[in-house]
Order: sequence, then C-alpha cells, then structure tokens
Amino acid sequence: MLTIGVDIGGTKIAAGVVDEDGSILARTRWDTDPENPQQIDASIVAAVVELRGAFDVGAVGVAAAGFVAPSRDTVMFAPNLAWRDYPLRDRLSAVIELPIVVENDANAAGWAEFRFGAGRDVSHMVMVTVGTGVGGAIIIDGHLLRGAFGVAGEIGHLKVVPHGHYCGCGHEGCWERYASGQALTLAARHLVTTDPDGSRRLQEIAGVGRRIKGPHVAAAAAEGDAAALELFRDLGYWIGMGSASLAAVLDPELIVIGGGVADSGEFFLDAARAGFLDHLSARGHRPEARIELALLGNDAGIIGAGDLARF
Amino acid sequence: MLTIGVDIGGTKIAAGVVDEDGSILARTRWDTDPENPQQIDASIVAAVVELRGAFDVGAVGVAAAGFVAPSRDTVMFAPNLAWRDYPLRDRLSAVIELPIVVENDANAAGWAEFRFGAGRDVSHMVMVTVGTGVGGAIIIDGHLLRGAFGVAGEIGHLKVVPHGHYCGCGHEGCWERYASGQALTLAARHLVTTDPDGSRRLQEIAGVGRRIKGPHVAAAAAEGDAAALELFRDLGYWIGMGSASLAAVLDPELIVIGGGVADSGEFFLDAARAGFLDHLSARGHRPEARIELALLGNDAGIIGAGDLARF
Amino acid sequence: MLTIGVDIGGTKIAAGVVDEDGSILARTRWDTDPENPQQIDASIVAAVVELRGAFDVGAVGVAAAGFVAPSRDTVMFAPNLAWRDYPLRDRLSAVIELPIVVENDANAAGWAEFRFGAGRDVSHMVMVTVGTGVGGAIIIDGHLLRGAFGVAGEIGHLKVVPHGHYCGCGHEGCWERYASGQALTLAARHLVTTDPDGSRRLQEIAGVGRRIKGPHVAAAAAEGDAAALELFRDLGYWIGMGSASLAAVLDPELIVIGGGVADSGEFFLDAARAGFLDHLSARGHRPEARIELALLGNDAGIIGAGDLARF
Amino acid sequence: MLTIGVDIGGTKIAAGVVDEDGSILARTRWDTDPENPQQIDASIVAAVVELRGAFDVGAVGVAAAGFVAPSRDTVMFAPNLAWRDYPLRDRLSAVIELPIVVENDANAAGWAEFRFGAGRDVSHMVMVTVGTGVGGAIIIDGHLLRGAFGVAGEIGHLKVVPHGHYCGCGHEGCWERYASGQALTLAARHLVTTDPDGSRRLQEIAGVGRRIKGPHVAAAAAEGDAAALELFRDLGYWIGMGSASLAAVLDPELIVIGGGVADSGEFFLDAARAGFLDHLSARGHRPEARIELALLGNDAGIIGAGDLARF
Repeated sequence: MLTIGVDIGGTKIAAGVVDEDGSILARTRWDTDPENPQQIDASIVAAVVELRGAFDVGAVGVAAAGFVAPSRDTVMFAPNLAWRDYPLRDRLSAVIELPIVVENDANAAGWAEFRFGAGRDVSHMVMVTVGTGVGGAIIIDGHLLRGAFGVAGEIGHLKVVPHGHYCGCGHEGCWERYASGQALTLAARHLVTTDPDGSRRLQEIAGVGRRIKGPHVAAAAAEGDAAALELFRDLGYWIGMGSASLAAVLDPELIVIGGGVADSGEFFLDAARAGFLDHLSARGHRPEARIELALLGNDAGIIGAGDLARF
Repeated sequence: MLTIGVDIGGTKIAAGVVDEDGSILARTRWDTDPENPQQIDASIVAAVVELRGAFDVGAVGVAAAGFVAPSRDTVMFAPNLAWRDYPLRDRLSAVIELPIVVENDANAAGWAEFRFGAGRDVSHMVMVTVGTGVGGAIIIDGHLLRGAFGVAGEIGHLKVVPHGHYCGCGHEGCWERYASGQALTLAARHLVTTDPDGSRRLQEIAGVGRRIKGPHVAAAAAEGDAAALELFRDLGYWIGMGSASLAAVLDPELIVIGGGVADSGEFFLDAARAGFLDHLSARGHRPEARIELALLGNDAGIIGAGDLARF
Repeated sequence: MLTIGVDIGGTKIAAGVVDEDGSILARTRWDTDPENPQQIDASIVAAVVELRGAFDVGAVGVAAAGFVAPSRDTVMFAPNLAWRDYPLRDRLSAVIELPIVVENDANAAGWAEFRFGAGRDVSHMVMVTVGTGVGGAIIIDGHLLRGAFGVAGEIGHLKVVPHGHYCGCGHEGCWERYASGQALTLAARHLVTTDPDGSRRLQEIAGVGRRIKGPHVAAAAAEGDAAALELFRDLGYWIGMGSASLAAVLDPELIVIGGGVADSGEFFLDAARAGFLDHLSARGHRPEARIELALLGNDAGIIGAGDLARF
Repeated sequence: MLTIGVDIGGTKIAAGVVDEDGSILARTRWDTDPENPQQIDASIVAAVVELRGAFDVGAVGVAAAGFVAPSRDTVMFAPNLAWRDYPLRDRLSAVIELPIVVENDANAAGWAEFRFGAGRDVSHMVMVTVGTGVGGAIIIDGHLLRGAFGVAGEIGHLKVVPHGHYCGCGHEGCWERYASGQALTLAARHLVTTDPDGSRRLQEIAGVGRRIKGPHVAAAAAEGDAAALELFRDLGYWIGMGSASLAAVLDPELIVIGGGVADSGEFFLDAARAGFLDHLSARGHRPEARIELALLGNDAGIIGAGDLARF
C-alpha cells in the first residue's frame, strides 16, 4: 500500500507518496499561512489531491510541530501555528476520503529513521532532532512512544542547568538551550564579545557588523577555524551529556542525531560521543548505546508521516 | 495461579506467596550474606521450598538491586551484591522446578504499584523509589520498560546539576544526590554546621555529637520543627523538579513516589507537586500528570516480583 | 571648600554644588548625546559654568559609567557612551580652570553612601548598586578601592552560575543576570509563560499584551500580589547570596544596597539578609556584616563625584 | 631589624629568623599538639627562645590557620586547632618580651610573596594558596587586606556552583571544592569509577585497591599520563575561572598561585591562564592581570610572619 506523508512547516507544506520501503515516489509543495488554519487545511487537501491524481494511495499521515492527542486526530497546541485543540483529522476527513492520522513532526522523523534509516536494525532508539530547538522521538521495542497525553519525547526540555539559560518554554536550563542550532549561534555571537581575536574569522564570514548565524559557523568550521570547531565541539558535548541522561531513563540501543544541524555532524559527532560516554552512569557495567547521525535528512518528516499512516 | 515473589535485600531475603489480586498469602524471611553468591542462592531456594510446602504455586519472580539482562535470567551487575554476569535463573532452575524470572527490584516495586497500588487505574506511570538512592520503574501503555539492555529506569542518574554533588556512580550532579534519603541526611548534617541555632532540635533528637540520620529528621518534622520541615520541602522540591524532566521525556499520567522515604510523604508531597508544576514544560498546553504516594509500602517488591512471574 | 559633582547619564548630565557635609546646594541638568563625545564635554562645561556663576567652588568631580584609569583622568571604556581611551580630564581642563577628577559612577555613589549615607559610621563597606545591572563600590579602611587598573568593584560580573544566563559582557552566569532590575523583569516575563494564572495581576498592570517592566512588578508587590512578592524575594535572595561571596573575599562591616531597584527595598531586604546569612561561610565563628539600604537615592552620584574631588 | 617568623602547622611549628630582605638566617622546628593550646604556646616560646639565643631580633610574627582579629592579637577561630577567641599575643607576651603580632597563615604567605617573591614588583596582588583547601591573601596598594573583622581573603569560599559539592564549611559549591588539592584527589578517585581504562595508570601508581592521593596524580602527570594531565588541566581551569571573579572584584595586577599544589604548577598553569582569560569580564577593554606561580614555597609562611611583625 502506498501512503501520502505530509510535513507541515511554517510557510509551506511538503508532501510525498511513500511506499512500503520508505521511498518517496513523488513530491509536491504548497505554500501556506501559519496564521490561518483554514489555509493550512486547504494546502494539505490540495497536496493530497495532486498526489492522488497519479498514485493509488491508501492512507494519509500528517506531521506538524505541536502536541498531538494520543487519538492522533487533534492538535492540542502548536507553538508556531494557529492551532489550539484543532480537530485536524476531522477537518481533513470531510474532504479527503482516506484514513488520516496526525502525528508530531519529530515523532514522524524519528519513526522514519527507525524504519528505514539509521535505526532500521534496532528495536530501542531515541532520535534527537537538533534544529533551532531540540525535539525527539522515542522508539521502545519497535513502538513509537506517544505518552499518556500524546506529548512524550519533548526531550529538549530536560532541565540540564539549574538557573541556566531561559528557554522559549519560559523555564531555565532546558537542554535545547545548550544543544541546538540556536544555542550554537548564541554561543558564537557571545564569543565575538569575549574573544574578538579568536572569533575574527567567524565575524568575517558573517560580514562585519552582521549577526552570526548557524551556516556561518559551519562555513568557518569547514575551513578549519579553531573557534568554530570549538563551538561545534561544545555543542556536541552538550548533546552527548543530555543523551547520557536519556540513556539512564530509556536504555536505548541507538541514539540518532538528526535535524538540520546534523548536516554538520562531522564537526560534533566525536564530541557528542565523548560527552555521552563521559556522563554515562554505570559505564563498564552495561552495554553502551551507539550514537549515529540520521540518514534521511529533510525527507524524514514525509517518510515518517506516510509510514505511520500504516500503523 | 499463585506465584512466589522474592525480594533480595542486603542481609536478608523476603519472600511471599502472591495471588492474582496482588495479595500476599504467606511470607517468610531468610538471612543471607551479600558477599557470597552461593549463600544467596541457598536462601532463595530455602524460601521457595518453605512457601511451596503450603501453597500450590506456578512460578517464581526474584527481584534484586542490579542490572538484569532483558532475557530476565542474568544479573549483569549489582552494586551491593557479589554478582557479576551471574546466571541467577539457571542456578535456581537447577533446584527449583518452576518457571523463574529475574527482575530489577525497583522495576518490581513499580510494577506492583501499577498493577495493584497507586497506579492501578492508569496505563502510563513512573514510579520514583526514594530510598538511600533514587530508583525507578517506567510503565508505558501497560508494559514495563526494560530497555534494550535491561537497564532502563535508572532515573536516579539523571544529571540535574552540572558540577554537582558526587554520586556513588562516580559522576557529579545525579538526581539521587538531591532527591534521596541520603541527600536529606547530608543536608541535615551540613545544616548543623551552617545554622547551629536553627538545627538545634535536630541535633538533640539525634543525640549530641551523634550523626543525624533520616529518622531523626522525620521525628523532628513530626514535632513541627521548622528546620526539619524545610529540609523535607527541599527534598520534595528536588523530587518534583526531576519528575518534570521525566514528564518531558515520558509523558506519564501518574508519578508515584515510593521507597522508604515515602513514609514521610506528608512532609514533602506538596513541595514535590509544586516543584513539578513549577518546572513542567508547556504547562497550560498539556494535561498535567498527578503525583501520588505509593500504597504498598515494603510489600511492593514481593508483590511485583511475584506478579511479573506471570508475564 | 565647595565642589561640583557631575553625574553623566545616557541622555543627560546632572550636576550639583556639594558642600563638605555632602549637601547639594544647587543643581542643574543639561541634555547630551551619548554618541557624541564633544557634546558630552560641552554639556559638562555648561553645567560647571552655570553652577560656578553662583558658588565659589574649588574642584570638579565627574562620574560616568565606565572604566576609569587609576590616574583619574581617562575613561578607558564606557559601554553606553562613545568613549574609548578618552582623555576626559584634559579635555575639560582646557576649558575649566579647576582641579578635575574622573570617577566611575558606581564608585562615586558608593563613596557618597560611605561618607554621608548608610555607611557614614563604618570603615569597610561594599555598595551593591542594583539598577539595570549590578555595579559596586568597595571601601577598604576608609579608602575607595580602585584596583591596579582602575576597574575594581565590577561585582556584577562575579560568576555565580556555571552555564547560566548570558550577560551583556558576553559571559554566562554573571551575578547581575540574577540580582538586577533586568533580572527581575525577565523573571516576571517568563513567569507569564510558565504560570499564566499566578502572573495574571502582573500582566494586567503591565497591560494585556504589553511587556512587563520593573515598575509593574513593584506596583503589583505594593498591592500584595503573591507572584510579584515572590519575584522580589528571589531577587533579594540572589543579592544576598552574591553578597556572601563578597563577604568571604572582602570582610566588610556593612553591605549597602543602592541603585534604582533599592526603592523597592522593602520587598526584598529581608530575603537579601536571609540569602546572605544562609550562604555566609564560617557563620557563627565570625561577626556578620549588616545589610542596609542606601540613603541618598539618585543624589549619590553627584554627591560622591563632588566629594571625591576633595581626595 | 631581624624578626622571628613562626608558622604553626597541625603537628609542628616551624620558625625562622628573617632579615629585611626576606632571607631566613636560621630555622627551627618544634613538635606540638593541636588539641592543646598550652602546648602550642610552649612550642612557640621554645622556638623563639632558641632562635633568640643566636640572633638579635626585634619582633615576632606568628601565623596560624584561623580567623585573627584585626587587632592582630587574638585567634577568634581555628578550624584545626583548639583555639576559640584565644588571646595568643597576650599569652606569648607574658613570656616573650618582644613586640608580637598574630596573622592568618595564608595572609602571611601572600605577604611574603608580595614583598620578596612573585609579587615584589606590584602593588595590587592576590595570592591563591592551593593546598588541601584554597586560602588567599589580598594586597591592595601595598597593604594587606585584613577586613573589618580580620577575616578577609577567605577566597576559597567564593560560591562558584549553586548546589555544588559540599564544603567543610557546610555550604555547597565553594571554590575550594573545585580548585584545591582535595578537589584534584576526589576527581581522580571518581575517575576510577567512571573510566577504569583511562585511569589505569593512576590506580597502578597509587597501588591496586589503594586510594589515589595528590602525589600519585602528580607522578602520573610527570610520566605524561593523559588522565592525570587532564585532571590537572581541570584543576587549573577552575583556578582560573575563580580568579576571573576575583579580578572582577579586586582588579589586581598579579595573581600568584602558591600552596603545596603549586609544586605541580607546570601541569596546570596554562589551563589556569586559559580559564582566567576565558572568563574575564570586559576582556579587551581592560588590562589583564598576570597569573604566576609563587616563588618562596614552604618558606613563605615564616618569611611573611616575620616580615609582618615589622608593619
């Protein structure tokens, strides 16, 4: 059975036809307006109708950044979209005559890696999605952990530093303030203040007087700039430290690091592994989880959403 | 079917006949020597033989503080017992002709609360066992989480304070250094140094020149001593804060606080709830897990071990 | 001898004629442009000329937020003014035929409190100026501590939280991120996210959808609002904790809390004293410094600058 | 004028005749009993009488680990000696007919370095004495800072980690728990648990099953052992970080690292400098203090005590 996976972003939705091996047979994109729920619905419908024109599909999976009820039909809350207790499945079902499930986007991406990517050979896996923030997906004995209320896997909000950096969630010291792309960028910007000499190349790449962004740090690291490489190592070490806490709780076989920042994995993967092993409790008395980079890149959302529509 | 649950402690084992409602129909205790694996085996056998004499039992569950392989037959490592990759099930099966399973003791206690105690009406639960250290059990959709290698639920080793108190595991800042009975006791002892006046009653109860222990703090709290109550509130607040991190990852419906310290639950439960809600990410946009005290007390280990022998 | 004290702010300078008892006999204010060093000079000259018209003054003291060389003539660096290694005294001396000294503004304010305010009876004092940030002045045996390079007393940059909030100085965890007016405001704004119910009154006072500012928190505290009072207590406790570190280093007899936030001293003074005593090392074996509020308010800068011109 | 400097340790006192250039012309040692104040007095007297037999001395300075009143006559509290508000000068003056001053031992050592050692060319200096704990001496404009109550310079009790390691003073997170010889030793011992492979050589040097001590770490570092060198680098980095806080407050020209651990200075000095510069507030806008090792070794106490008797 073919399915359609829909990945809802801030300003556009990406959708694709997904087969049972996790391959995307066709794709489309539709613009949308995050402030307007009806427009998001319309774009989803348009994408599905377009793809159904060429393929015989049996179900639709829709992934969005937000809290999804365990019944997989309602978005309870989405930080960047105008959805509040929004019955997305019912709205779509009124137009699309196919089984539809709604999923959290990090869960969808993690599921894709579990089924067809870095985790295809394991049963217990954690996906750490390192983008602007840190999201996660937890696979336990082959099942996606949704939790009692559908909001499991919010691993970016592990509290790792008492009185630490403020988080968008209002709290202090959440893991994602230390282990995300935004954390990397903030650290780079502050380095300019505390060490102007050491950060000279970083600032040059960003442009004099311009704010440093993640790609600038990546570009500097690619040149071998010492400050940029150190920033990535710090990022990786924090990723690893938090992963050690996750391992204490969940005991996975594999931790997959995905998300946009994982494209720079070569600069931080070793540090992540070091941070993990340095903080793994009972090391030496337990098997050690592996840490690997995700394999599916940006497609993971579409593939995972499409595949979850089968389960 | 009746089963036998065996709870292995440091110097004695407690065992009981457990029925399908989680009641203990008969009990026994045998002394043992934690340094001598053969003696532990012998005591387990003796207890089982004694209890089988009066009841028709169908299986045996053995719970111990240690890492148990997911195959439920081998203790990989036990911090306080002389077991290293010890094939406990095979050793016992050579003598006891019944199905036998080996389980982690915190998992057994959590399972008992889930099946017959504070969690009997929920499907997603975390048990926080607050004793000398902090142990845990995680129930996901009605299943006990064992993890890829059998060591899931080591929640006491969540890292909550960078550069924090040293833990027995060798690391710094583990949750159990802030949220356990030992943490309470250490805090009380240091209070004597930093605030001799405020801690006067505590020291009196312990005896002049004597080291303060947990029961002394509990006794002072029962009298309404301000310092002791504050110590318990601090303990509770740390329990709640760490629980908020667990909720971010696992999204349980219920968090059960058990273990020996839970006997003083009246002194810290409110603080635990406050610490939890003060640090719960996305509060207001998600249902909130409840925090309750365990109901089964010391029997939880026997009941849980016995009941897990059925699964 | 009368002197003139000049207090340079962001958009205006305030000046006054100061007598030997620390009284201000006359005042004036002149607008200025922080981006234009020549204009600041001009405004200072204008103020001095105006005040000299009516009084026979013998010296001028100029206080500014910045690093002042120990020779008291040059502003090495000012975070909010266009001065870099700026020879302020020489510039002014070219026009004003009087002895002139340049001082750091927090030092001037602290000196005023030491000579004529809360510290007039002590010899060893620390002034903690709690405004947007935290500044300080240290009096040792009746002398103002300027340090080897003129930058002593930057107590707001004590590092109190590893990996803590980012500071304007580029570092993490500086005391002023926890103990300043800005810290209070940020805490209030985040409380709106994490506890919408508890912070309802705070948000009402600020105006729906508006950003909460310090005066809103003060207004709510004056009404007895529980959340606002708790915010002030947290602020006070951090002030006290950092003061305990200062006491370990400096052993003052008195710690004076001044700056704009000290106007709300009634809401946080008790908490500051508690935080201090809770963290004072070797308490019980040493005399305890007192913590008091400043007495001179906004006049402290003028008075201190004027008085330091005599020394 | 020659003086006698007396350095009181736990089980013996060391004394010497000190000339005006800080040279020790003669020495003696007398055993003593820390539990018996009268015996300590007797040993001091014996040492002074012995040295006076051969030299014409004009004053005596006595240094001890403890809080000394600013009047330089009374030991208010000594953590390791049986003195509580002990009128040491009067007791000695009843027998020794010479001017006598009592000083804190870390202050004496720092004073010696300031006058004749690493700090002989500066006016503003901080001495960080890294031994079992961390002590300090602060020199401001050529004067020793004693503080309002005689207890200034207790820099080891700067609070650097909220909820950090417990300190002997009863508080959590004092600098000396991270920057002392004891901190080094504890870190080494815990490394054995968390990284048995990496710490193998350390354990070998200590002896199998033996507790690792500071000299073992130094011996391993001297061999180039990676784990030992990393432990020293961590130590140094903490020394540097705390020193940055001291620089924010005191603005010294020089920070001198002394004490027993400074004998291993080659292994941590670079890291101390890095930690200092990485955390120095307003770096780039201020001159930077130098960090150097002490020059006088164990003699600093005698020399400083003797020299302070002249002031």
